[in-house]
Parts: sequence; structure tokens; C-alpha cells
Amino acid sequence: MTLVDTDTRQAALARLREAVGPKGWVEAADAGTYLTDWRGLYHGRAAAVVRPGSTAEVAAVVRLCHEAGIAVVPQGGNTGLVGGSVPHEDGAEILLSTDRLTRIRDLDPLDNTVTVEAGVVLQQVQEAAAEADRLFPLSMGAEGSCRIGGNLATNAGGNAVLRYGNARELVLGLEVVLPDGQVWDGLRRLRKDNTGYDLKQLFIGAEGTLGVITAAVLRLFPRPRQREAALVAVPDPAAAVALLARMRAGSGDAVTAFELIQRQGIDFALAHVPGTPDPLEAPYDWYVLVELTSPVAGTDLRDKLEAVLEEAFETELVVDGAVAASDTQMQAFWALREAIVEGQARLGPQVKHDVSVPVSRVPAFLEQAAAAVAAALPGVRVNAFGHVGDGNIHFNLSPPEGLDAAAFAVAEPGLTGAVYDAVAALDGSISAEHGIGRLKRGDLAARKAPLELDLMRRIKRAFDPDGLMNPGKVLP
Amino acid sequence: MTLVDTDTRQAALARLREAVGPKGWVEAADAGTYLTDWRGLYHGRAAAVVRPGSTAEVAAVVRLCHEAGIAVVPQGGNTGLVGGSVPHEDGAEILLSTDRLTRIRDLDPLDNTVTVEAGVVLQQVQEAAAEADRLFPLSMGAEGSCRIGGNLATNAGGNAVLRYGNARELVLGLEVVLPDGQVWDGLRRLRKDNTGYDLKQLFIGAEGTLGVITAAVLRLFPRPRQREAALVAVPDPAAAVALLARMRAGSGDAVTAFELIQRQGIDFALAHVPGTPDPLEAPYDWYVLVELTSPVAGTDLRDKLEAVLEEAFETELVVDGAVAASDTQMQAFWALREAIVEGQARLGPQVKHDVSVPVSRVPAFLEQAAAAVAAALPGVRVNAFGHVGDGNIHFNLSPPEGLDAAAFAVAEPGLTGAVYDAVAALDGSISAEHGIGRLKRGDLAARKAPLELDLMRRIKRAFDPDGLMNPGKVLP
Repeated sequence: MTLVDTDTRQAALARLREAVGPKGWVEAADAGTYLTDWRGLYHGRAAAVVRPGSTAEVAAVVRLCHEAGIAVVPQGGNTGLVGGSVPHEDGAEILLSTDRLTRIRDLDPLDNTVTVEAGVVLQQVQEAAAEADRLFPLSMGAEGSCRIGGNLATNAGGNAVLRYGNARELVLGLEVVLPDGQVWDGLRRLRKDNTGYDLKQLFIGAEGTLGVITAAVLRLFPRPRQREAALVAVPDPAAAVALLARMRAGSGDAVTAFELIQRQGIDFALAHVPGTPDPLEAPYDWYVLVELTSPVAGTDLRDKLEAVLEEAFETELVVDGAVAASDTQMQAFWALREAIVEGQARLGPQVKHDVSVPVSRVPAFLEQAAAAVAAALPGVRVNAFGHVGDGNIHFNLSPPEGLDAAAFAVAEPGLTGAVYDAVAALDGSISAEHGIGRLKRGDLAARKAPLELDLMRRIKRAFDPDGLMNPGKVLP
Repeated sequence: MTLVDTDTRQAALARLREAVGPKGWVEAADAGTYLTDWRGLYHGRAAAVVRPGSTAEVAAVVRLCHEAGIAVVPQGGNTGLVGGSVPHEDGAEILLSTDRLTRIRDLDPLDNTVTVEAGVVLQQVQEAAAEADRLFPLSMGAEGSCRIGGNLATNAGGNAVLRYGNARELVLGLEVVLPDGQVWDGLRRLRKDNTGYDLKQLFIGAEGTLGVITAAVLRLFPRPRQREAALVAVPDPAAAVALLARMRAGSGDAVTAFELIQRQGIDFALAHVPGTPDPLEAPYDWYVLVELTSPVAGTDLRDKLEAVLEEAFETELVVDGAVAASDTQMQAFWALREAIVEGQARLGPQVKHDVSVPVSRVPAFLEQAAAAVAAALPGVRVNAFGHVGDGNIHFNLSPPEGLDAAAFAVAEPGLTGAVYDAVAALDGSISAEHGIGRLKRGDLAARKAPLELDLMRRIKRAFDPDGLMNPGKVLP
């Protein structure tokens, strides 16, 4: 942290206030929601909370802070799960919210692009695309409140990565305010541009440590005209992985989502989310929610889905299941998927892990991680679910029945260590889609190869030599 | 260039020779093919040409060179078009060929990944995928001789980018020898990994200026079971762009290639490539070669293709055309596409431009660039063709009839300037897929925003502070 004398600091804050005007200045009394993360793990303080109304105002804020040696924490919708977008407790940092940068600057159906400012809510991007008869495929539980700048800064994943890729793959161009306040205009809408290093890739997924994303050109796709879904029971995770391969081949690579669900998650949902029905007639250990989409109208997708499932039933890859007969039933399948998360949250304290392994190793991971956490804390309840098509498992743990929160908190480091050891043994990642932020910084330091950490630090120094951009996040 | 005294240099060369052994040492008499680029624009010299047989040997070579202050030029299949993989004329550099790194280390059909060393020829990657009933979609004219390491170092494009993306989008992990000889093992096979900056993105497309790619994990896809193609005449490029949108929507986003062809190119092919037939009964100004593929067997793709074309014919987006009735006819369409390139090359000197603009601006670009070059050199013959689905046009020029090569060479800078001005006016790129190398370094310096050049230089300094990795390429 750079030391700044109090007078310089006060002068800088006064100039900041001028730079953003009354609309852009948040009084201390109203700053609460900006200073606590969504999960309530961190309660920060800030020297000021500002909401610039334009890229020029963002640049002015960052430049003033750079001159005064004040650190800046950028924030989008503040829906992150690793504490990456809230300031530290010392109150020395500025919180810069993008929530007034809400313009959709341009949408071009022929280019299949939309140019949006960082503060546009994800759902509004989706809606703008739909109005132009296009699809913006990024989709996740928080889509009603997360903002696209945060999605890009964290390289968000979500439910359709299998088909469309992570946020990174949906970006053609970026506008970024650099740590010294310069504006990099990289708002290109080109599918091909091999003129030097691909700078935008650095800012995507850097969690605001290299600059503030202020706008982006995003890719659009043809809008789906057919959507089919099925919820099926499978004997084990290996069958799920085999079913995925057959579904991809048999559907014409139309698989948009392929979610593995464990019985424990459904039990949590049934017990704690009123109105959740048990999806099939009998209970099973493992389920898959599969969704297929096609941009061509017709009924052939249903035929393909049923053909693959029929064959899978005959070869015992699938033991029971239901194909959604209507949109309502399809929404019910997805509501169940969300209820699993909500049910576990309502139960009380939990330890979440957002990990990934190569797809073929998902079954081994589930077995090994379950054994390891059971050994660390007998009776611990495992709710593993997630995007098996990407090898991404949310391996979430609730305490054994009767264990209190304090005792569970004591067990947490051991549980997380056991899960991460299983991940490491299978060449996986300890953060598949949530990022590092503040929560996993220590784990990253302990588990990432020193050479890789060194390369990351070199990049950080090259872009932010004074260390003023979201310090204490990501990098150890 | 670092100054090194002759004794140190000689000692280093002797140790290099030891490090790679007799198989890895190319005697001066045999070095010719390594020192000239494919187009014959550059004729370099090298202090040594080495062909390491393993990643460890690459690391040893680079480390020795780093210690002795000798610059290293990495080379794959040496099929690049911008002189990026040949050494300078002063003979001070080492040429490091990856052509002995030819192992396919692993292929996993469930993970849909193949792990290959840098020197594997692209076509062999394709064949290995096909043997496992999978597709590796990167495809281009040079696929029989280009090597995958070079494809990744240049972020190669090719014929299937519209559907599958550039090389960048096909990579899950990399192994890289850094400029100081350290080996970065980033050979992950994860679809999701948000643990810090995405380092692999920096090496992809850096043209060997930040390190030597020695191996990669590549993504595989379901293999096509249906393939259909049509060659159609369109009234103008605007109709081609409109047809693309309809074809994407109407085929279920099954468009794999969408190539615009100008009559001039077909005339060159007819005149200079024996056996090339005129594809349709009458000549037309503009053609489109469209290819659709689906991983599901059946005949529905043909129905969809014909339905879109029929509707396009009725609305006069298409004025004539032929659907390939057999594999042979499909190959004939693609042979015509290749003959356009060959025909112009056989005609004599040409000025090539590999540019891109947003897809919607392709018609404007073709009109404005054609007018600009005609003004610069009346009678100049424009052969514009390329991947219109990516906005990527190869805007290649042959001299007016009767103008000799020397006079055409004099006109070249004016012609290129006119084309690049048209590109800039439409927010395009002066190098869509070929890269910068040595050929376009000056153009990059003149046309890239200074801030962007500055950011690139910061990255270069962070990774290669001594400037020993492919110096004088890409960066001005």
C-alpha cells in the first residue's frame, strides 16, 4: 500500500467528488450495499464510493487516484462469490461502481454483435439480443443482478459453457481504463485480428487487477427455435459422462447444458424449498438435466433426444427419466436445479467448492473427494452438482446432522484441503468459474506453480507498477 | 541486439551442438530451407540451425542462448506469409526448428482432447482425431506441411473459423519454453479454470516473441456425418452477407465455411490452372462457396440447404448455383477455391492483403478498396476472396495487363496504403490471420494506437527483458 499524507488524500477526495458530480457520489450512510459481498463474508470500508456516469468519468477517477496513490476497487453487480469486488477493512481504498454505465451503445444483427457498457445487467443484454432475434448465451443464476463488466472481469461461466464457451469466448472487443487513467479503446468487432498480442484476453478474468473494463463488444448467435430438456436418472457419474458423449453425437452437437445432480441436493431442496416436487417416481442416487437447443424450428430435436435416451435406456446408461412435455415442465426442471442451491443455503452453514477436472475424470473425482471429506469429518453431507460437460463440479458440503456451526467452521480447512488435494491429483482447478478474489488467494499461493505465479506478477507489474488496482485480490 | 564477444559465442555454439546431439544439428550446407521463407521474400542467415528432439532439449538450447546473449528464432513448418519464422541477414541468431517434436502424447475421446508436440503437422493432428472418430477443425491450404506449434504461435485461422473459431479457441493448455529456458507446464485439459491470468492466451498469436510453444492440449469435436456444399452466384457482396445470415439461421447454425469469390479469381484459375472448369453455365461477378456440416447422419442438411437457397433465389439474393451432388463435386468446389490462389500466383507478381472488417461492412470495404486501388494504379486487377463469414478478405492485386514487375513494385506501397486506409476507415484489421512477422512490422507501427503498442512492449519486456526471443518480429 502506498503511503499518502492526509492532506493530499483529502484534496484528492474533494477532486473525486467534483469529477463524478452529485449523482456519482455515494454518501457514507448509503454505501453499505457496496461494501459487503453477496455472501456476507467480507465487510469492507472505503474512503469513498463513486459511481461514474461515463468512461471519461471512470478515467478521471482512476487518474486522480493514481496521482494521489489511492487504491481503486472496481465493482459491477457485486454478486461475486470470492470477495473480489469489496474493499478491505482499513478504509483506505476507493470503491468504483460501474452501476451507472448502463448504455447499450450499439447492436448489429448482421455482425452478430452488441456493444454494451460495463454496468448493463446480464439479463438486459440477453433481452436486447432477443429483441433483435439473436441469442446472447451467457446465463447463470445471478443474471438478474450481475453486470456484464463483472462477468467479463471474472470470465464468468454458467449454464451454457458446453455449447458457447466461457465469457472470454463471447468477447470481440473491450474498452478498459488502465491503472494510470489512460483509456484503451479496443472496441473492435472483428472475428479475426492478428495484429500483435491479444490484449483483451489479459483483462478478461483478471478480476479488476489490471484495469477497469468500461465497455465490451459481445458476440451474438442465432436464437434457438427448438428447446428440449430431459431429467433422467443414471446409475453413476461414469454413466453420465458416457451419456454426454452419446448425446453430443446423437443430437448434432445440440447439447446446451448437461447438469449432474446428486440425490442429496434434491433432498435439500425437498426439505427446505416449499413446493419442490420429487422429479421422478422413485428416488435415485444420480440425475442428469440435459438441455438441447437448435436455431431451426421443427420437431426433430425431440426425436433425436428420445432416440438417444431410448438407446441409453437399453444399454443401462439411463435407468429412469422424463422428457419435458411443455415449457412449463422445462422451467420446472431448471427450478429444481436452482432449488438445490437454495435448499442447501437455507439449511445453514455450508462449505462451497467450485472445482473442475478433465471431463473423463469427473467420476474419479466424485469418488475420491467424497471419501476424503468423509474421512475428514464423518457424516458430512455432500451435495455435488454442476456442469459435468465442462468438468465443473460444485462440491458443496453441509455439516453432519446435529453438528453446530462452530464445530463445522473448525473442520472447514481440513475439508477444503481434502477436496483440493483430490482436485490436484486429477490435474484439476480449484476455481473453475468463481475466480480467486480474496477468498482463494491463499489457496492459489499454496497450490499454483511458482513459475506461473511469477509470470502473473510480471504482468501485474507491467500494467500496474504501483499496485493500485484492486490490490490484495487474486495475486498472493 | 546484445553484443557478445566471439569467444563466448563460439563456446556457446559448441555447447549447443552438444545439447542437441548429431540428430539435432543441421550443417550449414543443409540449412537452406530453414533460412528462406515460403514466399521467398526473406533470405536469412543463422549462427546455427538446431532441431531439438524434446522439450528438455529446447529448454537447454534456449537457456544456453540466454546465458550467451544469443537471439533465438523459433520455426515450425515455415509456411508463414509474413517472414516471422526466418532469421535476419546478419547471421547472429540461432534458428530453432520444432520439426523433430512430432509426438502425439495423448488422445482422450471422452475429454475431447489431444495433446500434441509443437512439430506435429496439422494434417496429422486432423488424422489422429479422425481415427478416434473426432474432428480437429483447424484447416487451411498449408495443412500438409504447417506444424501445430506454428499454427498456435500465429493464431492461425483458415476455412472453419466461422464455426469453430481461430486456433486460439481450440487450445486448452500449452507447454512453453520461456526466454530464459524455464519450462512452463500449462498442459491442462480443463474447459474451465479461473485461477488467475490466462497465460496461454499471451503465447498464442505472439509469433514466438515471448517463448517457444513446445506442446499443446487441443479441443476435439464430434466428427461430421453429413457434409453439403453449394456454389452459388450472388448479385453483389451485400447479397452474400444477407445470405450468410439466412443460411446460419436456416441450417441450424451448421455453416462451416462461407467463402466469397470474385470473377477475377475464377478467370485467373481458368487461364493458369489447367483442368479448372467454369463452375456455372454463365459467368457472374460474385460467387459464394458455402459448406454445411452436421455430426448427425441423415439427409436433413441437404433439405435445409436447398430450402434456404430456394427462398434466396426467389428473393434474388442468389441468381444461379449448383448444389454438390457428390463428394467428388464438393472436392471440385474446394479445388476451384484453391485454384484461385494458385492461378494468381502463376500469373506473376502480386500484392497480397489479408484484412478484416466487421462482417456488415464487407460490401463497403470491397467497393471502397477497389475504387482506391483503381485510382492509385488504373487497370490494376483485383482478386478479392475469402472468409466473408469472419469479415476476412484476401484482397490480392495483380498488375494491369502489360505492366512489368518493376513498375508494379514501385506502385506497391501506394496500393497497400490505399487498402489499409480503407480498412482503417471501417474499423478493420490489417492482418486478419497471417500475423505481423517482419513484413507488416512497419505498418503495425504506423497504424496501431501508440497506447496499444506501449502495452505490447510492456508485456514483451516482462517476459523477455533481454529481447532475445524472435527479435525484430511483430513489435516495432
